[in-house]
Amino acid sequence: MDKVRIGSVGLGRLGLQHAENIAGRIQNAELIAICDVDKPKVEETARRLGVKHQFTSFDDLVACKDVDAIAVVSPSALHTGQIAAAMKAGKHVFSEKPLGVTVAECKEAEKAVEAHPDLVFMLGFMRRFDESYKYAHDKVVAGEIGKPVLFRSYSQDPEKFIQGSIAFAPHSGGEFLDMSVHDIDLARWFTGSEPETVYAIGGCYAHPEFAAYKDGDNVSCLMKFKNDCMIFLFAGRTAPHGYNVETEIIGTKGILRIASIPQKNLVEVLDSHGVRRECSENFLERFATAYVNEVQEFVNCIVEKRKPSVTVYDGTKVSEIAYTCKAAFESGELLKF
Amino acid sequence: MDKVRIGSVGLGRLGLQHAENIAGRIQNAELIAICDVDKPKVEETARRLGVKHQFTSFDDLVACKDVDAIAVVSPSALHTGQIAAAMKAGKHVFSEKPLGVTVAECKEAEKAVEAHPDLVFMLGFMRRFDESYKYAHDKVVAGEIGKPVLFRSYSQDPEKFIQGSIAFAPHSGGEFLDMSVHDIDLARWFTGSEPETVYAIGGCYAHPEFAAYKDGDNVSCLMKFKNDCMIFLFAGRTAPHGYNVETEIIGTKGILRIASIPQKNLVEVLDSHGVRRECSENFLERFATAYVNEVQEFVNCIVEKRKPSVTVYDGTKVSEIAYTCKAAFESGELLKF
Amino acid sequence: MDKVRIGSVGLGRLGLQHAENIAGRIQNAELIAICDVDKPKVEETARRLGVKHQFTSFDDLVACKDVDAIAVVSPSALHTGQIAAAMKAGKHVFSEKPLGVTVAECKEAEKAVEAHPDLVFMLGFMRRFDESYKYAHDKVVAGEIGKPVLFRSYSQDPEKFIQGSIAFAPHSGGEFLDMSVHDIDLARWFTGSEPETVYAIGGCYAHPEFAAYKDGDNVSCLMKFKNDCMIFLFAGRTAPHGYNVETEIIGTKGILRIASIPQKNLVEVLDSHGVRRECSENFLERFATAYVNEVQEFVNCIVEKRKPSVTVYDGTKVSEIAYTCKAAFESGELLKF
Amino acid sequence: MDKVRIGSVGLGRLGLQHAENIAGRIQNAELIAICDVDKPKVEETARRLGVKHQFTSFDDLVACKDVDAIAVVSPSALHTGQIAAAMKAGKHVFSEKPLGVTVAECKEAEKAVEAHPDLVFMLGFMRRFDESYKYAHDKVVAGEIGKPVLFRSYSQDPEKFIQGSIAFAPHSGGEFLDMSVHDIDLARWFTGSEPETVYAIGGCYAHPEFAAYKDGDNVSCLMKFKNDCMIFLFAGRTAPHGYNVETEIIGTKGILRIASIPQKNLVEVLDSHGVRRECSENFLERFATAYVNEVQEFVNCIVEKRKPSVTVYDGTKVSEIAYTCKAAFESGELLKF
Repeated sequence: MDKVRIGSVGLGRLGLQHAENIAGRIQNAELIAICDVDKPKVEETARRLGVKHQFTSFDDLVACKDVDAIAVVSPSALHTGQIAAAMKAGKHVFSEKPLGVTVAECKEAEKAVEAHPDLVFMLGFMRRFDESYKYAHDKVVAGEIGKPVLFRSYSQDPEKFIQGSIAFAPHSGGEFLDMSVHDIDLARWFTGSEPETVYAIGGCYAHPEFAAYKDGDNVSCLMKFKNDCMIFLFAGRTAPHGYNVETEIIGTKGILRIASIPQKNLVEVLDSHGVRRECSENFLERFATAYVNEVQEFVNCIVEKRKPSVTVYDGTKVSEIAYTCKAAFESGELLKF
Repeated sequence: MDKVRIGSVGLGRLGLQHAENIAGRIQNAELIAICDVDKPKVEETARRLGVKHQFTSFDDLVACKDVDAIAVVSPSALHTGQIAAAMKAGKHVFSEKPLGVTVAECKEAEKAVEAHPDLVFMLGFMRRFDESYKYAHDKVVAGEIGKPVLFRSYSQDPEKFIQGSIAFAPHSGGEFLDMSVHDIDLARWFTGSEPETVYAIGGCYAHPEFAAYKDGDNVSCLMKFKNDCMIFLFAGRTAPHGYNVETEIIGTKGILRIASIPQKNLVEVLDSHGVRRECSENFLERFATAYVNEVQEFVNCIVEKRKPSVTVYDGTKVSEIAYTCKAAFESGELLKF
Repeated sequence: MDKVRIGSVGLGRLGLQHAENIAGRIQNAELIAICDVDKPKVEETARRLGVKHQFTSFDDLVACKDVDAIAVVSPSALHTGQIAAAMKAGKHVFSEKPLGVTVAECKEAEKAVEAHPDLVFMLGFMRRFDESYKYAHDKVVAGEIGKPVLFRSYSQDPEKFIQGSIAFAPHSGGEFLDMSVHDIDLARWFTGSEPETVYAIGGCYAHPEFAAYKDGDNVSCLMKFKNDCMIFLFAGRTAPHGYNVETEIIGTKGILRIASIPQKNLVEVLDSHGVRRECSENFLERFATAYVNEVQEFVNCIVEKRKPSVTVYDGTKVSEIAYTCKAAFESGELLKF
Repeated sequence: MDKVRIGSVGLGRLGLQHAENIAGRIQNAELIAICDVDKPKVEETARRLGVKHQFTSFDDLVACKDVDAIAVVSPSALHTGQIAAAMKAGKHVFSEKPLGVTVAECKEAEKAVEAHPDLVFMLGFMRRFDESYKYAHDKVVAGEIGKPVLFRSYSQDPEKFIQGSIAFAPHSGGEFLDMSVHDIDLARWFTGSEPETVYAIGGCYAHPEFAAYKDGDNVSCLMKFKNDCMIFLFAGRTAPHGYNVETEIIGTKGILRIASIPQKNLVEVLDSHGVRRECSENFLERFATAYVNEVQEFVNCIVEKRKPSVTVYDGTKVSEIAYTCKAAFESGELLKF
């Protein structure tokens, strides 16, 4: 069996991680090419990871005959275009979220995917590939917690990275689009349902800079889903303790909590501060294995000629919902979907 | 210093607990009289606890010269009237929640209290007297968590008591009035602020019987408070694990969680089910010490001639808010206060 | 039913706690008298707690006709003599540990107790009356964990009280006698067996001052009990996090851990130190309820004319074992009982 | 840079895991050959993992020119011989524990390693490569917990695998050699010291079958190390909850606990059993990442021409200590090293 030869575009923080994973941690895959506008970074990374082809132009990557599949880890605004171009060139595509920066773009991506039913397309909702989230999902599907009553999910970035958040604020689309999209994806995945209404609030509790973009530093929303499940989402940029992603699913027969504290590892420290767990610092640390697992699944789908469970339509739905949450937050009104 | 001689009315489950506490666990207090319509229960309890006066009529209790203070632990519908009668007779009054079953009744209770500024009146929001809640509140007041961003509070009754909940449904006033009042009190106490808006949802996920009373078996609401704090409350009657009351206060500088799991005690069991904590079964178990502490504070106020921090107005405010939550739930609309 | 009138001797830290408990937290009990050599403290305490009789001489306390029972909370060296004198005067006796400072003294106490089979004598092994230890013991007795394999118990005092420990070192008898006695009592209580061999080690890891008394600041021992159960005890005076008393009982069918972390209360703090629990600071905080429960049991025994499960012989056995542990530690040899 | 071409011998449970890791999860490595006496298993595995060379004879593997390094994951009795043969043939060697089944064999392995200073030899004490153990070790080395006082370490296999343990009993060498070796390695690694004395006890609490081999189903020992650190080790084959490996290091300034409960993942279940964590089932699950990390370090050492921190001498020392623990257990005497 030949290895799937992957070309990866984008060498930012997550892009580098994906490149390293493909180069050394994914079975049946080979990192055959990398592409970024930063030529020195491309050269250094290619040397370090032993990558055959180096590109600074995405068109050249797409044109490369050795490439079977492309991993899109470029800036969000480029996703839709690169997905379409890559698939047109006959490449399988793994794309990081978001599918597009507008719902219209997402619809374009849908068309690109629909035009190539023979190719594998997968969107990077990595939390679904985290061992703990998968384990919990299996239990829910098996009926172990009964009917879902309340789904609560938090996404919190540490306060110590606030300057980065402020700098990115003009481009982030706001907390619901930037952070809650993963929670929205989980809510749909765990409940198998779609939202009917949303009420969203929040504000700038520590950092007034976000107000200029009609955003807050901490926001939340309460949604009613069609199956009556209550959905409470919270996103914050000022977490004092670390990078916190936690989810609770209350069912009629059982309750599951995933990562109710963001423990860094299995070490417990007992000292003058009490008995404590140190915390994860960022998404790369928390979801290190999930980032490997999701690309492994992408590769497995190509090898086994099947389609991933995360579809292009999930990307569109999540964007639609996040935009509605944003609109609810900005208007202060109760919105219906 | 003489002991405060307390007469207690109502010998239901909580009434008996209060009677036992006053009889043996409160300093500077004496259980001098008990009153209930159930004569055999009055006799048995008086004998067991060594109580001097036994009454089956509240009027007789009020008329008793030996009684300095009255503890009202009777059915909710009687609270307002008994508060007024007791204070008119010159007795200090400790009353269990609710202050009244309607906001109008609460206002009457306010008048009764205002008419007797020399008497101590205290409402039984016992959670404020739980060691853990007090400890957390002290930290918030000391500024240790910065500005409050999100206040989340759950009140869950175990599924195994569901038949009792169903039987009581016609009289409970619904989950917001029956259960969330304590969370509403905590929200006001911890944030020092009042609500502006509320959106409430929920339903009958396991027990359709509640629908007949426009109630659910699990409900939640999202409120915006005047200080911008987000308030998320959840109340449920189908908890699979036990009696769960938990609260989280997310601030800009720290986060506090009170009783994030309802551990029964300090025993951890490691067996074929994994590593587990058994859970509290009911409010009497979880708040055993708080019920003692609150009456001790009532007695201390009488002895030290000062007023409790929980006022009659807290009772009215909480009722007003709970009724608005109920209206929001029934209408499906976003309501403003 | 008349109240048991208790006279308490000793107004040190624990003595004051017992006095306050008897005065206000024990059902069917009355604090009728207190006795201490510190006259101003006696006066102040009597005034504060409303105590009828004040004594600075133990003989006067014993001679007091109003006293039904005596609580011995005086310095250890006085215990045996006061127990004997009190029982000779027809008083029921509750005595704090140790029963005596030598095994010979313990034997004398046994004789005093045996001479008055009509009187209640109880020794203050309060851990048996802690809700969590009781709960665990019930499970063990019910066979829920099968046959006991390993019993591990820690007693740790916080480093911040080290100056007090050093000052008390000449009189403490060493860590096994001063601290491990409670763990030894628990080991016997949980396993229902007695030791066969002991190997003990340790040293002065932070504070060389203890070496002068052939003691360490941290010590441990491994004992084989007659039922084959392995017993590992650890005692330390330099705990960085707080007052830590924890026990684990590994059985063939289940494992129980009691207070595996010394959580102060139910508050979890999430801040720059991670996710943490603050810790208990001392025995009065950790065992507040146990100190009430044990005296309540003493009173109940008197009222119900029955004997406590903790006997005078438990006190002797524990002393014998602790002295053998001490000898093992000092000699470095493996000792047999 | 060329990849390190590894041949792996032994396709038991752990052998297969190593083969899969080398084939797909180790950077700069290639699984070029596999060897096992079970020919069909070799064929099936080679096909599944895309392995070039297949052998049923170790001599053939050693003779293979394409092989740069050999991973020894064969039965323990073969380790020493295969290490020597492989190194003689100029191959780098990674060997699973134990280094040899006797101390004499370990000494032979030392000679083989010493004879080839240009080759990399590494022993598989994988716990040192677990993220949590590494994190804790870094803290200890950095002085964060002060001077080590007590090192406590448990290795427990689940009762549900007891039939396998019984079947393996004649060959296991007893619990100290079979299980505690990892704890002994950790004790030396964390304290940087060596044992002076050991007292060991235990027995057959549930399964008398082990007595025939002078072994127990649960054993423990207390050792005094040269730096005065107390070492308490416990090994058990009847864990009711799962595969439990936990370690505590009590220092004068801080305490670290690694994996105090063997949580399977980050999911917490709240149901009729209470609030619980499900547990790891075996070493492959618990140490999945550590098994990858250790071989990655082996490969890195080859690539970077440096030597691993785990040396052949660590293997000998651990064996010597484990044999002394075994002798102490069998004799019931206090032994000195």
